[in-house]
Amino acid sequence: MTKKTINDTFLKACRGEAVPYTPVWYMRQAGRYQPEYREIRQRYSFFEMNEKPEVCAEVTRLPVEQLGVDAAILFADIMTPLKPVGVDVQIKSGVGPVISNPVRNAADVNQIGTLNPQQDIPFVLESIHMLTSEQLDVPLIGFAGAPFTLASYLIEGGPSKNYHQTKGFMYSQPEAWEILMEKLADLTVTYLMAQISAGAHAVQVFDSWVGALNSADYHTYVAPVMNRIFSRLKKSTDVPLIYFGIGAGHLLQEWNRLPVDVIGLDWRTSIRQARQSGIEKTLQGNLDPSLLLAPWEMIEKQAREILDQGMETPGHIFNLGHGTFPEIQVETLQRLTRFIHEYTQK
Amino acid sequence: MTKKTINDTFLKACRGEAVPYTPVWYMRQAGRYQPEYREIRQRYSFFEMNEKPEVCAEVTRLPVEQLGVDAAILFADIMTPLKPVGVDVQIKSGVGPVISNPVRNAADVNQIGTLNPQQDIPFVLESIHMLTSEQLDVPLIGFAGAPFTLASYLIEGGPSKNYHQTKGFMYSQPEAWEILMEKLADLTVTYLMAQISAGAHAVQVFDSWVGALNSADYHTYVAPVMNRIFSRLKKSTDVPLIYFGIGAGHLLQEWNRLPVDVIGLDWRTSIRQARQSGIEKTLQGNLDPSLLLAPWEMIEKQAREILDQGMETPGHIFNLGHGTFPEIQVETLQRLTRFIHEYTQK
Repeated sequence: MTKKTINDTFLKACRGEAVPYTPVWYMRQAGRYQPEYREIRQRYSFFEMNEKPEVCAEVTRLPVEQLGVDAAILFADIMTPLKPVGVDVQIKSGVGPVISNPVRNAADVNQIGTLNPQQDIPFVLESIHMLTSEQLDVPLIGFAGAPFTLASYLIEGGPSKNYHQTKGFMYSQPEAWEILMEKLADLTVTYLMAQISAGAHAVQVFDSWVGALNSADYHTYVAPVMNRIFSRLKKSTDVPLIYFGIGAGHLLQEWNRLPVDVIGLDWRTSIRQARQSGIEKTLQGNLDPSLLLAPWEMIEKQAREILDQGMETPGHIFNLGHGTFPEIQVETLQRLTRFIHEYTQK
Repeated sequence: MTKKTINDTFLKACRGEAVPYTPVWYMRQAGRYQPEYREIRQRYSFFEMNEKPEVCAEVTRLPVEQLGVDAAILFADIMTPLKPVGVDVQIKSGVGPVISNPVRNAADVNQIGTLNPQQDIPFVLESIHMLTSEQLDVPLIGFAGAPFTLASYLIEGGPSKNYHQTKGFMYSQPEAWEILMEKLADLTVTYLMAQISAGAHAVQVFDSWVGALNSADYHTYVAPVMNRIFSRLKKSTDVPLIYFGIGAGHLLQEWNRLPVDVIGLDWRTSIRQARQSGIEKTLQGNLDPSLLLAPWEMIEKQAREILDQGMETPGHIFNLGHGTFPEIQVETLQRLTRFIHEYTQK
């Protein structure tokens, strides 16, 4: 087995270096919009699939081959590392993670164990090893959930619209909240470092729901733990660090102060607006995934607008502003990928 | 029956006039957090209750008497006027509106009828008449859903997290979308004018989910219809017009150009930030409702901060950034209301 030479356009863009064209990948690029994915997914529960390295590697590789994207993202769930530390979680189709033993007080927080990746989730490391040592010719992005977002599932017991219980916990049990954040930070750093050691070329931290906080609360309750996570990673690795959340435009100034390389934008903040507000890091995004249901001319127009804005300054990776969803056509993402490459080719 | 003299502090604040103290009301102030509401709600389905004027009036009045707020808001649902125009909607407890005949194409749009308030929803007008002619000593706020938000329920068939189908419809069937917006605009204007004729002292338009659009799409697909709605209302009435949405901070500049008197803010944009960005209209908000689960000292600190910012310029109405929810204690809202009145008394 000789290690393949990988196309490092994505990694260069993460670092704000000159690139031959704008690289692209899509959040949830392995997903139900793919007939092949649906077929595989029918045979296993989510975690059954997650624990089979060959299947994970296949599903991770598929969109790279099918769409021609410039990075792969590990097939897993942000809940993957929580199962072995004592969280009874299931991924319910059409719902998301559902947890039978939600965290409601300090005693529940203390029940959360520590992660030993080699012992607890060897299948994840094996998937990464298989993918990066022989299969992929693009970088592999590892990922983890951020403490606030993980805590929201742990506390609410599943997906939520308002995060009242999560924020209620945060406001009324600040000591238990801090311990919870620290435990989840340790877990996140341990998990990501294991992914990097196994071969991941970059990592993305998903703080999908943190936009539910205003910036003052983010500053008090979340920024310190995110700072510690990214600082610890920066000390141990030089792989690019990406931070992403939905509806978090009001937190961009807070995010800009974190030691991350790339900020993921949803479609509500344009790249130009982010640049004008002083964000100098590489930006990743930000086509509204709903737009993929529009006629091609509209998709192309919006993609061109995003690419034009992205090329005004160094450091842009094209992506969607949130994950794919089942109603998207594979052909649409194929055509979009081709367009991005051709339009930005230097 | 002699008409009571009403406390017009809320109406003065809507108009940016001098007020003796900062007025306050709470979105969903008639709600499951009240034992009395839960007791009444157990006896009827939502629409059974909605169609009984005495019960609606009782439920509308209760928070005014119980909390001492400065305005009542009609007990109804944004779906109330859609039922008589052919939408088969039920309010499912813990879910929200569920629609058995979702709108998916131009033919479905054409099926939507026109509203004749006196004939179709006499119970709403009767509730308003009862409340304003004899029962209330504070202004009554009438309300309606905005076209985008109503359309999101009609198209998705219920609550949604991503609004992919709604936006997909908007992008790919622009002519049908425009007809849908026009039909819903006519319905909204007709419904609100009937409420005003029946006695409502102000009206709030809930565009709860329009923050799912970026500002360019809002400008193209929604702003024209909102402009027409508010302009038509402004021509026919001088009652204050309030516009509210969740997670819509990125749309504030668009909203500022609409002929409305009051903009409702959620907790993600502070009053000071809104003022600094050039919003001169009266602002309504914006305590994070989740904070009502915190210890009193934290609630008071945040309320004081909001009130201080609100008093820097004329035109502030205290409210939550979104509706109440069942876990809130009645005593907390009583104490908060007292605090707001005492702290801002001139």
